[in-house]
Amino acid sequence: MTEKQQELGTLHLIPVGLSEAGIDNWLPAAAQQQASGLTHYVAENAKTARAFLKLLALARPIQDIDIQTLPAKPDQARLEQCLAPLFAGHDLGLVSEAGCPAVADPGSALVALAHRAGARVHPWVGPSSIMLGLMASGLDGQRFAFHGYAPVKPADRARQLKQWEQLSARLSQTQILIETPYRNDAMFETLAQTLAPQTRLCLARALTGPEQWVATRTVQQWRKAPTPKLSGLPTLFLFQA
Amino acid sequence: MTEKQQELGTLHLIPVGLSEAGIDNWLPAAAQQQASGLTHYVAENAKTARAFLKLLALARPIQDIDIQTLPAKPDQARLEQCLAPLFAGHDLGLVSEAGCPAVADPGSALVALAHRAGARVHPWVGPSSIMLGLMASGLDGQRFAFHGYAPVKPADRARQLKQWEQLSARLSQTQILIETPYRNDAMFETLAQTLAPQTRLCLARALTGPEQWVATRTVQQWRKAPTPKLSGLPTLFLFQA
Repeated sequence: MTEKQQELGTLHLIPVGLSEAGIDNWLPAAAQQQASGLTHYVAENAKTARAFLKLLALARPIQDIDIQTLPAKPDQARLEQCLAPLFAGHDLGLVSEAGCPAVADPGSALVALAHRAGARVHPWVGPSSIMLGLMASGLDGQRFAFHGYAPVKPADRARQLKQWEQLSARLSQTQILIETPYRNDAMFETLAQTLAPQTRLCLARALTGPEQWVATRTVQQWRKAPTPKLSGLPTLFLFQA
Repeated sequence: MTEKQQELGTLHLIPVGLSEAGIDNWLPAAAQQQASGLTHYVAENAKTARAFLKLLALARPIQDIDIQTLPAKPDQARLEQCLAPLFAGHDLGLVSEAGCPAVADPGSALVALAHRAGARVHPWVGPSSIMLGLMASGLDGQRFAFHGYAPVKPADRARQLKQWEQLSARLSQTQILIETPYRNDAMFETLAQTLAPQTRLCLARALTGPEQWVATRTVQQWRKAPTPKLSGLPTLFLFQA
């Protein structure tokens, strides 16, 4: 190391797959190439990060790639430790368990710290269930809100869904939420019981995977339709009043 | 045509580039292959659709590809006309001027009609400035709202921005908006003057292009920083109170 100030590396935000579909379905070649050459990673889960790396034509043996794990609620000291390779001048990759890092999952605190340190942050194109579901829903994509999870307690949940429905009507805003896959059936039932008959509801199931299925109907129509198979399959719920 | 009922084609939602960057930077190989084989397209703008098609290894001469133009506010008859190839059993591609079709641009009415007709709708992975900007911002990606454009009149605009800022504080929700590129400087100035000093503001400029630049600072810091060069360059504005 010379006395010349060490330059910071770039933080590369690398999306990973939503399903078992082949990588050429969901990651552009340039993103694959960037990801395959990185020597340092921060991952939500080191095991899924290694599964992702194995899909790439790696520039070195996988055991030579440094993978730090990002806890769900990291403190400042842990975040700085994760960014240490960046501060030492290495490019660093951030990957989540599925989809785009720092969207609907932890990681944004790490990105924020990289900005404060003055590092360059480079987002790469890849799969986002929110974007794929919204595109395919036929609901208004000019204004939308993603809420993450609804409350779990039935009364709170119904109240929250009604509030989002009112917001949707008032702002012409599509409402988007997710659920833990084993609770999808209960969520569908609550939506079908709680929302107004004319509200349009879209189910976007298993996006990019072999069980992908996207359907949009009014709540009234859903009440009469056969119960969709959602349990255990990642599903995005979208509605517009 | 036999008496057997003609099957419907699939509506493929094909994202297009946000910049002049090479297509391997922003479109996965499988999406390129799907797009290169389609015989029928609906486009927001036929000229930019042809420019996109020229980036692909097309299966046939470009003049043999049928491209229908989707008006900004199409009526039912025009939408049905656009979907005619789908009803006749052909797969059909939908492309917008930039980014993901039916998100922050017209197209959702066409997708909705395809759903009502019972056609399969397949969204492909590609660039979305909203998703790239959100990932790279370091702001909260667990809850966010995309609003499209703010009002143009200064008083309305300031009032609306303050409302979104209150919403952001109340719901821990990142707020996202766009502006017509030649008005970006005015939008930045209004944001810097209107929002609270501690609100974090991210500018995500020219995503995927050579002038890409993403920076996140508090409003207080932006007020003291050199004025960013935004005019004429597509920019996403994101903030979190």
